[in-house]
Amino acid sequence: MRTVRLYTENDLAAGLSVTLPSAQAHYLGHVMRLKAGAPVALFNGRDGEWLAKIASIRRGEAAVTVESQTSPQDAAPDLWLLFAPVKRARIDFIAAKATELGVSALAPVFTDNTAVSRVNGERLAANAIEAAEQCGRNSVPTIQSTASLTERLTDWPTARRILLCDETGAGVPVADALGGLPPDHAAAPWAILCGPEGGFSRQELDLLAEKPIVTRISLGPRILRADTAALAAISCWQAVLGDWRNSSGG
Amino acid sequence: MRTVRLYTENDLAAGLSVTLPSAQAHYLGHVMRLKAGAPVALFNGRDGEWLAKIASIRRGEAAVTVESQTSPQDAAPDLWLLFAPVKRARIDFIAAKATELGVSALAPVFTDNTAVSRVNGERLAANAIEAAEQCGRNSVPTIQSTASLTERLTDWPTARRILLCDETGAGVPVADALGGLPPDHAAAPWAILCGPEGGFSRQELDLLAEKPIVTRISLGPRILRADTAALAAISCWQAVLGDWRNSSGG
Repeated sequence: MRTVRLYTENDLAAGLSVTLPSAQAHYLGHVMRLKAGAPVALFNGRDGEWLAKIASIRRGEAAVTVESQTSPQDAAPDLWLLFAPVKRARIDFIAAKATELGVSALAPVFTDNTAVSRVNGERLAANAIEAAEQCGRNSVPTIQSTASLTERLTDWPTARRILLCDETGAGVPVADALGGLPPDHAAAPWAILCGPEGGFSRQELDLLAEKPIVTRISLGPRILRADTAALAAISCWQAVLGDWRNSSGG
Repeated sequence: MRTVRLYTENDLAAGLSVTLPSAQAHYLGHVMRLKAGAPVALFNGRDGEWLAKIASIRRGEAAVTVESQTSPQDAAPDLWLLFAPVKRARIDFIAAKATELGVSALAPVFTDNTAVSRVNGERLAANAIEAAEQCGRNSVPTIQSTASLTERLTDWPTARRILLCDETGAGVPVADALGGLPPDHAAAPWAILCGPEGGFSRQELDLLAEKPIVTRISLGPRILRADTAALAAISCWQAVLGDWRNSSGG
């Protein structure tokens, strides 16, 4: 059985004792049925992955002792996913899958055609954490606060390029767009921007078209759902520009 | 509102009257609340997409009259997805997403580490049909009967190449693998092969390694779930070899 991996906000170093929150204690004791002495892998996004042993575990409480580093902190690619919130099951799905595929931040953005009016940031984070624990990454994507697309673009970091998933078909085929970038664009930090079901409004597309940092792509002749488009774009970006280029997977 | 699209097994030609099965009649009348005279788009995988009008609709029965062709039959890329069956929700998801992303066939294969013992082919087909209706394609992927990986490889069509998603990390990074193919391999029909959670067995990997038709790829350093790996591989294949190359999306 694979060692259980848990995300923690605590610092991690040899010899430290860490008290786990009750949800994690419950998971270890009641779901995984682990006892004192059992190994647990911990990561916090800063200190790499560490092997810890359960020091004590009982009804809703668990303490572990951190023993040794099992892998150094990995540097996930600097890729944000900006996505229009969709219905609950699909947003859970986007958070989990984007984490597995290796994004560094999840940023919900309200667009003109967004039908959902509220985003549960804690739920997004919980899905991202669970996916990070399972896929072996040593970090959890940052959950950015929800903003409108216009707000988001107003204070946009100038160096960060945007890969715009344009469902109108007016974009460049994704492989051509990513493969043909000048080296400074290829090496830049990026954000993938995916619209809601129904796509971006004319005004939004015009606003984005004005920006030299935007690369407008097409993902083929079929109408992809918002969640599918996000995953497809992340996969293509990772394959061409990200850390799927020199992988040594686990 | 977008015109409702329905898959039918009937022939489609101008002037034909088509009686729809009761599930479709129910969907048009009770879910979409359409009345006689309302437009419906129909496709059957052979005759392109046709505009039809509802001729009559009442309790569980609907007849439509086929009027004119709205798009010719599209030629979806010849890409099979061979996947180890996973739990119900994830298999629904694979069927729907792979259809959206444009595969031509779905083939469940039992592998050494497959934990699921039965595949509901009708359910697979229903998910594929629903996704095809929504994403605008004029065809539905073929659902191949479930077989073991060994059986499947025994009578394998010699011209069809296999893109093996190898979670051990021993494969070639996907962009290099797809971008570096000789032209006859790039133009061949393909199948993407994804294993179960837990991966392929040593024996399976050895069997596959012997076959010159197999291209073994890596999808990065994280451990992708089986469904995520399938979608990522299809996306990369479509971008480099498939119909995302010259898209004119809708």
